[in-house]
Amino acid sequence: MTVSKLPQPFPRSEYIRRLAAVKSEMARREIDALIVHDAANLTYLTGHTGKATVIPQALVVSLQKEEPTLILRKMDAPSAHYQTFLEPGSVIAYSEDLIGNPRADGYDVVIDLLNDFGLASRGVGLEQSTLPPLAVDKFKKRLPKARFVDGTGLIDWIRIVKSDLEIAIMREAAAITDKAFARAAEVIRPDVREADAAAEIIGALVRGVNGKAGSDIQNFYMCASPLTGTPHVQWTDGTLRDGSQINLELGGKRHHYVVGGMRTFCIGKPSERLRRIHEGEVEGLEAALANVRPGVTCSDVANVFYRTLEKHGFKKESRCGYSIGINWLEQTASLRDGDMTELKPNMTFHMMLGNWVDEEFGYVIGETFRVTESGAEVFTKTPRKLFEI
Amino acid sequence: MTVSKLPQPFPRSEYIRRLAAVKSEMARREIDALIVHDAANLTYLTGHTGKATVIPQALVVSLQKEEPTLILRKMDAPSAHYQTFLEPGSVIAYSEDLIGNPRADGYDVVIDLLNDFGLASRGVGLEQSTLPPLAVDKFKKRLPKARFVDGTGLIDWIRIVKSDLEIAIMREAAAITDKAFARAAEVIRPDVREADAAAEIIGALVRGVNGKAGSDIQNFYMCASPLTGTPHVQWTDGTLRDGSQINLELGGKRHHYVVGGMRTFCIGKPSERLRRIHEGEVEGLEAALANVRPGVTCSDVANVFYRTLEKHGFKKESRCGYSIGINWLEQTASLRDGDMTELKPNMTFHMMLGNWVDEEFGYVIGETFRVTESGAEVFTKTPRKLFEI
Repeated sequence: MTVSKLPQPFPRSEYIRRLAAVKSEMARREIDALIVHDAANLTYLTGHTGKATVIPQALVVSLQKEEPTLILRKMDAPSAHYQTFLEPGSVIAYSEDLIGNPRADGYDVVIDLLNDFGLASRGVGLEQSTLPPLAVDKFKKRLPKARFVDGTGLIDWIRIVKSDLEIAIMREAAAITDKAFARAAEVIRPDVREADAAAEIIGALVRGVNGKAGSDIQNFYMCASPLTGTPHVQWTDGTLRDGSQINLELGGKRHHYVVGGMRTFCIGKPSERLRRIHEGEVEGLEAALANVRPGVTCSDVANVFYRTLEKHGFKKESRCGYSIGINWLEQTASLRDGDMTELKPNMTFHMMLGNWVDEEFGYVIGETFRVTESGAEVFTKTPRKLFEI
Repeated sequence: MTVSKLPQPFPRSEYIRRLAAVKSEMARREIDALIVHDAANLTYLTGHTGKATVIPQALVVSLQKEEPTLILRKMDAPSAHYQTFLEPGSVIAYSEDLIGNPRADGYDVVIDLLNDFGLASRGVGLEQSTLPPLAVDKFKKRLPKARFVDGTGLIDWIRIVKSDLEIAIMREAAAITDKAFARAAEVIRPDVREADAAAEIIGALVRGVNGKAGSDIQNFYMCASPLTGTPHVQWTDGTLRDGSQINLELGGKRHHYVVGGMRTFCIGKPSERLRRIHEGEVEGLEAALANVRPGVTCSDVANVFYRTLEKHGFKKESRCGYSIGINWLEQTASLRDGDMTELKPNMTFHMMLGNWVDEEFGYVIGETFRVTESGAEVFTKTPRKLFEI
């Protein structure tokens, strides 16, 4: 292996720290080998961001070895050498003959490795949230003596508390988020095609800030009138007009860490209803943020928002946010009534206050924040205003 | 439901035709209700493109009903009314209380619906390629009398042959692909940051052509020196230089149909090795395309490419391509040795001739084509040249 590595976002010691936390939890659950399939978990433990989509790849974390073993198709293996802290011997490239091959696939290579490691009759953790069922069936069939444990969430609940190094990367992502909203305020104009505005805003997300490029585009949603009553659609063939409202959800992404945000834009004078919901939501946002501190529960924070908004005559049905980090949404704590997760320093959340009141009316605002020793630090600087163009 | 629909990419009759084909295959496999989870299959049968990522959503196709039933979280339901041909009664919006809720989720709503439809003890098809294993477990536990059938690939093998209406949309996507490569040829220059070049090319993919916007960005890979030996990484913080090589994979996307393409760019004079592989690959590409016609197998086409390339002293280890359509890769036929799928008119493939020869040397060219009555129609017009800047 002569290939040199790219500049790494984190030192090896950071990955070893993360792995130690994962192994400690594995030992507690009697898992000897954890098969990591979730893309964000794989990035978390190695730095690798090569996308596999439907192509099998996995990381095997074994209690017996310091470094995990990354198994991926041959054409993707060089990216693991470039991007990750792993030694060459910790990357296994499997034959391209196994792609689109009904007889055997990359999961067979993972299973062979467990056999080689002497782990075939030990505790094997599978991420049953993302691994395809047919792959799970294959593991169970080919490793009849293994004791299978559901590993869903094991890494995710470790990821929920960020290190200071991760927070530093998220601050870089936040600068990109700010830049994209600033570009939006420049390009959202009457008679501009939605796609042209989207291209400019996405361009800002890609270019990044201060020579620090954005990595990838994810969850970019520009819902313009008449689509403001729903969140997850893209720009259309339409053109912005006087009177158009534009709900924008986007996130600067840096080394795959995201700082999400949402803002509402209107061309011309906002309706009274829009102005009122904006006031209620911002008051709710600020009240909720003022209540963030270690020891408070997610439920507490959410209920401060809900109660404040209700005083303004509005109701939000969906949760108020979720843990955020690599590749946006983390599948752990939600800012919702009844989620008793206690806040800890360096947890990070997207307080997602999008409110799709009815099919033809919605409003969005969202801020990503970090729990500090005594309160909340919002990552971005974009003003919390209704952007009137 | 007062909300109006967006202009639809296809008439209702097209969706009914697709559903009829799916139901015919369901009947053959004794499936009374098919639970469609794969995002591309869901778009194929309804036109809905709202992204769910990890949030449960599904389409229930029942032999008893003309229209399928789309189940999704409440905030996403308006997008189904806007985007799809479905009647309001065919869209079920489930409570936001089920998001991030460990006790119940959207799959419980799907199961309740099967009970309501009287299908709880019938043949139920599950797409076990994408449905999370924990969801599969829930179906099996809560529907103990159902007879479960793996529905993986059922819709995919119907999608493999496009209608003329789909081909027309793919031609629109192809024009976007051409535009993006043309933009690349303008912006790839020495001393340009990779991220700035990427922003411009991605901008072209978003803007689209002739007022027809691109939909979404997918599988955009810009691998510049020294990362030309691997395909699936993004732009970096680096700057293009004299002597840089840039391997570009991108696809114009229109109503989520993709026409993928690949081209290699070099700044300055190409190395002899690069020039030679380019000649061999283009000759192989053209020989393979000349052999495409109905009745020929995928294996035949691939082997024409492999043999032609080998005459030039190079070898490609990975497959030569795959069926392409909604959301890029289709999980069906591959252009690879041993794939005996016979070509039929209106099958569409990305002849993906990326060749990552070693860790520090690779070359890419790719063309998306349609099988015609007598040969192949390549969708794009971008020249098959090594772009020397």
